[in-house]
Amino acid sequence: MEQHQARLARVRRKMEEAGIGQLLITDHLSIYYLTGIDVVPMERFWALLVKAAGGEVLFANQLFALGETGLPTVTMTDTDDVAAVVAPHIVPGVMGVDKNMAARFLLPIMAACGETRAVLGSDCVDSVRARKDEAEKALMRRASEINDLCMEKLAAYIHDGVTERQCADYLVRCYGECGCEGVSFEPIVSFGPNAADPHHAPDGTVVREGDCIVIDIGCKKDHYCSDMTRTYFWKKADPKYAAIHDLVREACERAQALVRPGVPLCDVDAAARGHIAAAGYGTYFTHRLGHFIGMEDHEQGDVSAANAAPAQAGMVFSIEPGVYLPGEFGVRIEDLVIVTEDGCESLNHVDKQWKILGI
Amino acid sequence: MEQHQARLARVRRKMEEAGIGQLLITDHLSIYYLTGIDVVPMERFWALLVKAAGGEVLFANQLFALGETGLPTVTMTDTDDVAAVVAPHIVPGVMGVDKNMAARFLLPIMAACGETRAVLGSDCVDSVRARKDEAEKALMRRASEINDLCMEKLAAYIHDGVTERQCADYLVRCYGECGCEGVSFEPIVSFGPNAADPHHAPDGTVVREGDCIVIDIGCKKDHYCSDMTRTYFWKKADPKYAAIHDLVREACERAQALVRPGVPLCDVDAAARGHIAAAGYGTYFTHRLGHFIGMEDHEQGDVSAANAAPAQAGMVFSIEPGVYLPGEFGVRIEDLVIVTEDGCESLNHVDKQWKILGI
Repeated sequence: MEQHQARLARVRRKMEEAGIGQLLITDHLSIYYLTGIDVVPMERFWALLVKAAGGEVLFANQLFALGETGLPTVTMTDTDDVAAVVAPHIVPGVMGVDKNMAARFLLPIMAACGETRAVLGSDCVDSVRARKDEAEKALMRRASEINDLCMEKLAAYIHDGVTERQCADYLVRCYGECGCEGVSFEPIVSFGPNAADPHHAPDGTVVREGDCIVIDIGCKKDHYCSDMTRTYFWKKADPKYAAIHDLVREACERAQALVRPGVPLCDVDAAARGHIAAAGYGTYFTHRLGHFIGMEDHEQGDVSAANAAPAQAGMVFSIEPGVYLPGEFGVRIEDLVIVTEDGCESLNHVDKQWKILGI
Repeated sequence: MEQHQARLARVRRKMEEAGIGQLLITDHLSIYYLTGIDVVPMERFWALLVKAAGGEVLFANQLFALGETGLPTVTMTDTDDVAAVVAPHIVPGVMGVDKNMAARFLLPIMAACGETRAVLGSDCVDSVRARKDEAEKALMRRASEINDLCMEKLAAYIHDGVTERQCADYLVRCYGECGCEGVSFEPIVSFGPNAADPHHAPDGTVVREGDCIVIDIGCKKDHYCSDMTRTYFWKKADPKYAAIHDLVREACERAQALVRPGVPLCDVDAAARGHIAAAGYGTYFTHRLGHFIGMEDHEQGDVSAANAAPAQAGMVFSIEPGVYLPGEFGVRIEDLVIVTEDGCESLNHVDKQWKILGI
C-alpha cells in the first residue's frame, strides 16, 4: 500500500543517514506501522527485515495464519531454530535492531551471524513514527474526541458515595460503548490526598466534600491512543487549591502557546516549569512536562529539560504540568497536541478551568 | 522473607549447575517472584542482579517510589546512563540475562562490560518458576476456582440473540465482581463455524440453533492465572459433533490419567493425540496439547511432541486437546493440572461432558 511504502522510504532515509544497511524489527507495532499486518506474536518470533538498499523480508510463525502478505515471507514452526532461519538473510557488517528486541532472539542471532555487529537502530523507525502522517493524525483526533466525550460522561457520573474504582470501571464501560479496543493505560482517578501521588491506582476511596478529583485517562481506538487529564473539586473548592489549579492551567496554556516547529522541547518544558516555580511550587512539579504518544501511550521522545531536540511538524505529545502536595492535594492538567506548520493543534477540548462538581 | 530466600536459593543452585556466576534479571514478574516487590517499569530500567555466590542488587528508577526494599538498591533517574550505572556491578566472565531483556538495555550493557560475555540465563529462574511452591499452588487453585464459577455463570447467561462479544464482556464483569485484576488473556467465545479457528476473537456473531460454543477463558487473581476451555451446544447437538466432543474429552482424560513425575511431557501429548488420531481426526488437532502457566498465561515449558523433559512435582500446565473442522465446527476441552507426588490434581471442576444449553 502507498502509505506503507512512504513510511518505509522514510525509514530507509534514516538508515542511510545512520549507516545501517539492514534493520531487523521485532516491535509488532512498528511492523504494523510499516506493513499494515497486525500480529501480536506473544512469545513467538515475528520480525521485519528492512534493507536500506531496498527490499524487505518478513519472518513469521505458521501459526499466525497471515494469508497473502504481499512481501517475501519466511515461515517457521515452533520447533525451528529462529537464529538458524534468520542468519542466512543477514549480511556481514552492521545490523540494526529495534529497542524492544528480546534477548532470547537477539543473543542467538548475534551468535549465528558472527561477522555481523548488532547495534541499536530503533531510532530509524521510532523517529519516523514520532512524526504522524495525515492518516495517523485523523486516528489520533478520533481517539481524543472519544476521550473528551468520556471525560464529560465520567464527570457527570461522579456522585456521593462513589469510589475511585467505580469511576474507573464506569469509564472502561464508556470506552467499550464507543467502540474502543480498550484503555491506552490503566485509568487514574484520585480523590483528595490520593492525588498527591501522580500514579495513584484507583481504589475503594470514597469521594468527600472538598476533595480534588484528578482524572487522567485514555482510550485506544483503531490502534491509536488518547491521554488527557482534568482536575475537578467535589462540592466545594479550597481557595488555596483553586489558585494552584489556576497556576497549573496557565502553565499548560503557556507551554502550548510556545509550541511550533523549531522550538526546543526543553524550552516548552521550561515555560510551564518556570511559571509554576515563580509561584513557589517548583519543587512540587516532580515529573517531565510530557511524552510522545501514538500507537503506544508512551513512545520515544519526551518534553523535558533533558531533550533539546526541536519540535517538528507532525509530532504528537502530551503537555501535562502538575503540582503535588504530599498527603494533601494534587492537580494535573493535560492535553495532547499535534505540532502544525506554525504552531500546534490541541486534540482535547474539554474546558480546563477548575470546576466544582456535585452542586 | 523466607519464601523469597528459598526461591533465590533454588535459582542459585541452577546458576551453579549452568556455570553462570551472575544473572541480570529484567523480567518484572521474575523480580516479583524473587523479592515480592511489584513494579511494572514500562519503558524504564528495573533489574535484579543475582550472584551465584550470594548477594543481590536491585536497580530502580527513583520514580518507582519503592520505599524500603530490604535489598542493596541502586537508584537512578531518567537522565542517567543505565549501562554506566550497571557496569561497575558486573564482574568479568559470564553474565546471564533473562529471555525478555530488551535490546535497548542489553546492547549498551554489553558494550560497557567489555570483558563480560552475555548468555541466555533465563532458564535458571524460569525452570524454578515452573515448579510452584505451596503458596503459589494455593493462588493457582484460587484463580481456577473463580474461573470455574465464572464458566458456570457464563453458560447460564447465554440466551437467544446474544453475541460472542456480549458473552466476553459479561465474563469480564464477572471476573471484576470476583475481585480479579483482570483476564489472563483475551476471552475466546466462538459460535459454530467460528470455533474452527482456535484463536477466534469474539465478534458480533449471534448464537444459532445447533452451534457449538467454545469458551476458552481465564482470570488473573493476586498475580496468578487461570485458563480453562469447555465446549457446549446451543438448543441441539448434531450426533457427529457430539461424538467428536466425546472423543476430545476422552483424549483430555487419558492425558490427565498419565501425568505423574517422571513421565516425559511428549508422552502426555501423544496419549491425547493418539486417541484423536485413532478416530481419524489427527490432522484436525493442529496445536500442542498444553502450555505451562503461572503468573503468565504462557510460561516457559510446553506439553508437545518436541518436549521430552519429564513432568516434575509442582509443575502446572494445561491439557487442551481440540478438533477443528474448517468452516464447520470446533471443540476444545482444557483443564489445568498440578503435578503431584504420584499423579496430578486438576484445578478445574466444571463438568467436561457435552451439554446442550438453551433448553
